[in-house]
Amino acid sequence: MKIAVDAMGGDNGPTTIIPGVERARDQFPDIEFLLYGDEAKIRAEIKNDQRLTIVATSEEILADEEPVKAVRRKKDASMVVAAHAVKDGEADAIFSAGSTGALLAAGLFIIGRIKGIDRPGLMPTLPDFRTGSQFNILDIGANADSKPENLYQFAVLGNYYAKNMRGIERPRIALLNNGTEPDKGDLTHKAAYQLIAAEKDFNFIGNIEARELLNGRADVVVTDGFTGNAALKSIEGTAISILHLLKDSIMNGGVKAKLGGALLKGSLGTLRDNFDYSRYGGAVLLGLKAPVVKTHGTASPDAVYYTISQIHDMVSKQVVADVVDYFSRNELARRPEKND
Amino acid sequence: MKIAVDAMGGDNGPTTIIPGVERARDQFPDIEFLLYGDEAKIRAEIKNDQRLTIVATSEEILADEEPVKAVRRKKDASMVVAAHAVKDGEADAIFSAGSTGALLAAGLFIIGRIKGIDRPGLMPTLPDFRTGSQFNILDIGANADSKPENLYQFAVLGNYYAKNMRGIERPRIALLNNGTEPDKGDLTHKAAYQLIAAEKDFNFIGNIEARELLNGRADVVVTDGFTGNAALKSIEGTAISILHLLKDSIMNGGVKAKLGGALLKGSLGTLRDNFDYSRYGGAVLLGLKAPVVKTHGTASPDAVYYTISQIHDMVSKQVVADVVDYFSRNELARRPEKND
Repeated sequence: MKIAVDAMGGDNGPTTIIPGVERARDQFPDIEFLLYGDEAKIRAEIKNDQRLTIVATSEEILADEEPVKAVRRKKDASMVVAAHAVKDGEADAIFSAGSTGALLAAGLFIIGRIKGIDRPGLMPTLPDFRTGSQFNILDIGANADSKPENLYQFAVLGNYYAKNMRGIERPRIALLNNGTEPDKGDLTHKAAYQLIAAEKDFNFIGNIEARELLNGRADVVVTDGFTGNAALKSIEGTAISILHLLKDSIMNGGVKAKLGGALLKGSLGTLRDNFDYSRYGGAVLLGLKAPVVKTHGTASPDAVYYTISQIHDMVSKQVVADVVDYFSRNELARRPEKND
Repeated sequence: MKIAVDAMGGDNGPTTIIPGVERARDQFPDIEFLLYGDEAKIRAEIKNDQRLTIVATSEEILADEEPVKAVRRKKDASMVVAAHAVKDGEADAIFSAGSTGALLAAGLFIIGRIKGIDRPGLMPTLPDFRTGSQFNILDIGANADSKPENLYQFAVLGNYYAKNMRGIERPRIALLNNGTEPDKGDLTHKAAYQLIAAEKDFNFIGNIEARELLNGRADVVVTDGFTGNAALKSIEGTAISILHLLKDSIMNGGVKAKLGGALLKGSLGTLRDNFDYSRYGGAVLLGLKAPVVKTHGTASPDAVYYTISQIHDMVSKQVVADVVDYFSRNELARRPEKND
């Protein structure tokens, strides 16, 4: 398989991306990489060029650029040229650590949506703190405004991902809502509940409240991008705040606290590791015609490696192909298909 | 001043509420309490009946009842009769640890909205982990569907609360959104941004992302009830999960970790206390004609005491009266007033 890599994305570009790519190359003998970006900068980071092909590009999309304009205007940007390679069948999937908005725009305008999907959803894999397993949640921010049909489609996408990628036979699907009763929520979530509950293919377990997200109740959590974004960022912000507070209270708690902190170092490290979800891979833009996966702009070479491992799995396990097949079987014929 | 107390609300009813009330009575010589509920059960908990008057009621609203129906049908419920006392001018404010939905319904149908406010917002006071101060956030769930005008009104309400109650001259108001740029958000939040930004009375600092909520950037965070509910519950769930993980890693980390945990006990206690926001009072249903304040169903007598202290302050400082005045001065004349 061939993976197109936007080598310029992220805060450090090739410096962190190339070591991650080389680790993945050494691990997976069936991957060939196409590396898009500044040829000299990329080459400077490469230790062994086996199965790595550099495709020189002259532009980059910056984090603060208006995504749609940037993708349309910067035709020789690493991310744009990499997306065209996927569209033209030269690569099977695309990896980027660049701007989420730009990657979404490139995915929508260049690679294109799966027929039957109105909007792709952005989906990370998060740790479940109670059982030590993981769950997927989508959309966490690809869309600001969502309709009930979009949430239904996110359930289809998440269901396939959990089945094919994670090997869960009957993934437990839940809808993030402001209460557990079926009639809870705003108009969009009430209607989405009905659409999802009516689908016999789903193992729908009903609504889930944000307080329960980390407790392992669901394999796939469906949410609109606005609420999902607030929930995920609240989780991240709280975890960061508490770990800071903990560190401060150890550092400022005198000799006793410092000694306690030293004795607990291993346990606290495990706690931090539990929260570092980059080892489960990146965030997938599900609903596009090929795997489009991004990692944080601040990702380490390890996070790049984990994300490429995930892409390798997605291509091998034909996650996207199965979704295409599902929608082409017209199981959605009874639902109105809207294009925006 | 007179405070009407729903003595039957919460998981333990009078058993936890009366001790909290008595502590507040001893602290504030200017409060007289009207205690609504089962006379025998209330009397059994009272140690000293100074400035406590029991008003016997025969019904209770349970946590799982449909709120609007319960309030309409159970005319002799402690919460309903207490709300009528406020409406009839027999009490200045109402306290309950009962169902939030029922208290909202009682507030709307019995006490009534301030003229100019379409929907009240539910507003807790939360700790800011970075600076050790607090912030208010509303709405965290009184409404599932909100319009831009509702969010604007939440900003007015929060602004008055922060000014009058917390003595902040120019409260920093922020809008919870999915990015910091002014054009971020769904249609509702884009429009709300414009309404809030146009109000010269506000010290509006723009959008805030959920990741920054606990970092002390704003004094008042405005959000719709659906998103605010998800954000607050995500914060709570994450904090609880991390404290559990920490405890587990200490308990299962062998002798070294246990010793470390023992040495850190004081610091970890401080961390837990930092997160216990009941000492800042309860959640206020702002936008009603009198202070309507609730605490958790699982609240301790201390939490009851803190919430009554807050109500005492709200009545003394005329927070609600000032909001009524603001809207009656027709400063909102240029905005359409909608009633639903």
